[in-house]
Amino acid sequence: MEQLEKLFNRIISRTRINLREFDFDIDAYVQNIIPLEQLTKFYGFYGITAHHPIHFSFKHSNLAGSYFLGKCSTLNSILYKSDIRGDELKLKGETFDAHGTGIVLDEDEMISIKNSLLIKTLVHNFSHDPEKVDLFLIKNTISNAYANIHGAPMDGCFLGPFSTVDLTTLHDCVIGTFSYVQVGTLAHTFVPPGRVWVKNGDVFDFTYQFPEDELKHYIYFKQEEGPVGRFMDFAEDRKPDFQRLYNVVHMESPLEVPLGASINRYSVFQGESHIEENVLVAQRAFIESSWLGKGANAQENCYISDSRLEGYNVTAHGATIIHAHLNQKVFAGFNSFLQGTEKCPLTVGSGCIIMPHTIIHPDAPLEIPPDYLVWGYIRKEEDLADHSISLEELSRVRDKINIGDMRFRGDGSAFVHAFRHRIEHILEANGAYFDGEMNRGHAQKGQNISFNIIQPYPRGPQEGLYPSTEIHP
Amino acid sequence: MEQLEKLFNRIISRTRINLREFDFDIDAYVQNIIPLEQLTKFYGFYGITAHHPIHFSFKHSNLAGSYFLGKCSTLNSILYKSDIRGDELKLKGETFDAHGTGIVLDEDEMISIKNSLLIKTLVHNFSHDPEKVDLFLIKNTISNAYANIHGAPMDGCFLGPFSTVDLTTLHDCVIGTFSYVQVGTLAHTFVPPGRVWVKNGDVFDFTYQFPEDELKHYIYFKQEEGPVGRFMDFAEDRKPDFQRLYNVVHMESPLEVPLGASINRYSVFQGESHIEENVLVAQRAFIESSWLGKGANAQENCYISDSRLEGYNVTAHGATIIHAHLNQKVFAGFNSFLQGTEKCPLTVGSGCIIMPHTIIHPDAPLEIPPDYLVWGYIRKEEDLADHSISLEELSRVRDKINIGDMRFRGDGSAFVHAFRHRIEHILEANGAYFDGEMNRGHAQKGQNISFNIIQPYPRGPQEGLYPSTEIHP
Repeated sequence: MEQLEKLFNRIISRTRINLREFDFDIDAYVQNIIPLEQLTKFYGFYGITAHHPIHFSFKHSNLAGSYFLGKCSTLNSILYKSDIRGDELKLKGETFDAHGTGIVLDEDEMISIKNSLLIKTLVHNFSHDPEKVDLFLIKNTISNAYANIHGAPMDGCFLGPFSTVDLTTLHDCVIGTFSYVQVGTLAHTFVPPGRVWVKNGDVFDFTYQFPEDELKHYIYFKQEEGPVGRFMDFAEDRKPDFQRLYNVVHMESPLEVPLGASINRYSVFQGESHIEENVLVAQRAFIESSWLGKGANAQENCYISDSRLEGYNVTAHGATIIHAHLNQKVFAGFNSFLQGTEKCPLTVGSGCIIMPHTIIHPDAPLEIPPDYLVWGYIRKEEDLADHSISLEELSRVRDKINIGDMRFRGDGSAFVHAFRHRIEHILEANGAYFDGEMNRGHAQKGQNISFNIIQPYPRGPQEGLYPSTEIHP
Repeated sequence: MEQLEKLFNRIISRTRINLREFDFDIDAYVQNIIPLEQLTKFYGFYGITAHHPIHFSFKHSNLAGSYFLGKCSTLNSILYKSDIRGDELKLKGETFDAHGTGIVLDEDEMISIKNSLLIKTLVHNFSHDPEKVDLFLIKNTISNAYANIHGAPMDGCFLGPFSTVDLTTLHDCVIGTFSYVQVGTLAHTFVPPGRVWVKNGDVFDFTYQFPEDELKHYIYFKQEEGPVGRFMDFAEDRKPDFQRLYNVVHMESPLEVPLGASINRYSVFQGESHIEENVLVAQRAFIESSWLGKGANAQENCYISDSRLEGYNVTAHGATIIHAHLNQKVFAGFNSFLQGTEKCPLTVGSGCIIMPHTIIHPDAPLEIPPDYLVWGYIRKEEDLADHSISLEELSRVRDKINIGDMRFRGDGSAFVHAFRHRIEHILEANGAYFDGEMNRGHAQKGQNISFNIIQPYPRGPQEGLYPSTEIHP
């Protein structure tokens, strides 16, 4: 494993150099957290479909347990149980609108991961950087468990566990544990843990800061040890249910799949569940005793248990929904954690937007009225006053509003419009509106995937490294 | 599947053109025999070890159920459940002795398969063609179930089921069902079914012709239908036992593997079996209630059942051994079929050479004395007189000898020497003489293989074709 060890250390050095301006001991958050032996134990895999242009290029990398779809390349990188989903990349000939200027793509966009260490990270969507329209580049970056890199090219960054960088170009930044940033571009910034930040130039700026002491119980990045807390325990408990998926080449579908729906064979179904047409269940999603209505989706690392989703629900990457009843068009953002219980169920009215990185963990039955924006940390009904606003009210904000620890500046209606527009776009992209012929999306395109399994050198100095592999049509 | 269909037809046209001189209706032996749907059902796989230089290149090919090891490439080809074992290829810097002239290799040798259709075919060893030392090329060729292409580059050939081409460069030839040729070079020749032919220039020439009517019960290539007979039934019966191997990514070892031995995870073990040190069991070998002594091996498509091999036994590709007791250093040649029964067991004395393509199917207990050469078709003890000769007696032949349907011309001692030398070489190559440090061979080098799984396009015009794939260190 000499070469793998060398690679590991080289990646850390590079990121360390990029982040030298901060008082941040990167080694305390990387060394000893992933034992290198783990990296030789799992296979990598990639999908081939008739719908996605492919180009896979893996060089001098370890891909243990990682999944690839579409056009992606890795160089001098370690990807541990990560998902690189290149099924929303821009295509050759498409026009990308960059601040009013249309840029026509000369070639298909590609995800390129260089000198990086990604741990249980999701990479999805496409580069929103107008300076690099055909390259979604992740370079000199270290990301941790259940981080989401969503349409966010980056260089020289460290992403804490359960953090999300969304539609943002990042340079030399530290994104704290469970922080969410969607701010367009960000450089040389240290984002503390538990910060939720959505900013669109001068149009609007939403921030919320989680209470540090409370967040610690859910997720905390312990030096020399790694992420701990309820989120990790929850994922850890369900790990054995996933393991059997990986030891079988072909899986029978766990339930009847209606027209236009698709269940990735690397998802877990338990108990009695039901899915309607156009439902999309991505790899590494976990569905237990739940009902998913027409066009609902469950993305990577979602857990949906004892819940009912009425339809056209977006359950973004990493969202957890337990003992909840979500009416139509409820959006549950990235890594949101809606943890009802049998005695304290959660009901969410139609059209609600649960902000990314929201924790709702009620100790009594809780109901959220329709068309609300919800954020932050909610344990009881009274918390709602400080952690939600009706979308109508927010739309009327022209200048600013502060509610509890949330601070909003700018144009409320632009914010609501942007979110609603995006949710519609996600539903379209996922194929929620497929009518049997038109409006095909991921749910339909993912119905027939061939999975390919790649393994590293089993012994010798190259142990753990994958041979160089190039795959194209 | 349009493109796959086109590819299939193009391969046939090419071979048809090469073989136009013969009164041979190639279509009758190819069309309708492999339904194209079969070609989309199975995955291909390749092995990565620390010991074999790798380079895999797959282009515009179907690789359904086929296995690759070492350096190999396919172009415009269909390989159905075939084994391309590049673990005996010549290495860069090695000297190849071509008729007394040493040729030093500039680069590693590679198996290259172009415009060919191989069905359940084994490709192994290295090119013995001095004109192409670094290329083991199989081109415009169609081969059928359980054919062996062993160190035999070829162009424009048709190999019948259970045929073997061994250490021979072939050009525009038809090799009949269950024929074995090891003649150095052969061009524009139609070898009828059931011919066993070993020739070394002017030094010796061994031929045997199977009785057509008898052979038919064992193996017969029926037009429009494919190969039929006892051999096929036998393989067909054991197919379900293999199927489960292919649906699991990691297999537990079916029994304790002693020092220096290796069991390929794509082999089947049933009943109580035992293996000693340095035993090699290759992929697609089937071992049932048998005892394999030190340094014994079972190659691809071997079936060993209710038998005891005392040690240093070579069971060549495709050999079947049932209810037999093989003493030390018995060589069972390619596709030989030793079918004892509980009531009619077979005993073979030490040092015997069972010629490739020998059928021993006794209807009473049968014993073959040590150090005999055995060939042809043997049902009872009396048949031995016409189908065997002691190696000592054969060594004394200077000119010629005819025994039954066997015709030998030339130097008997050279023949015996060549065979014995080769058997020693096979034992060495297989690692039978490994002492814990030195004399490492396939048994030791195959102990740690990472298996990689590749799949074709699941739908669309490219359905059944594999994406272009390049893999190198």
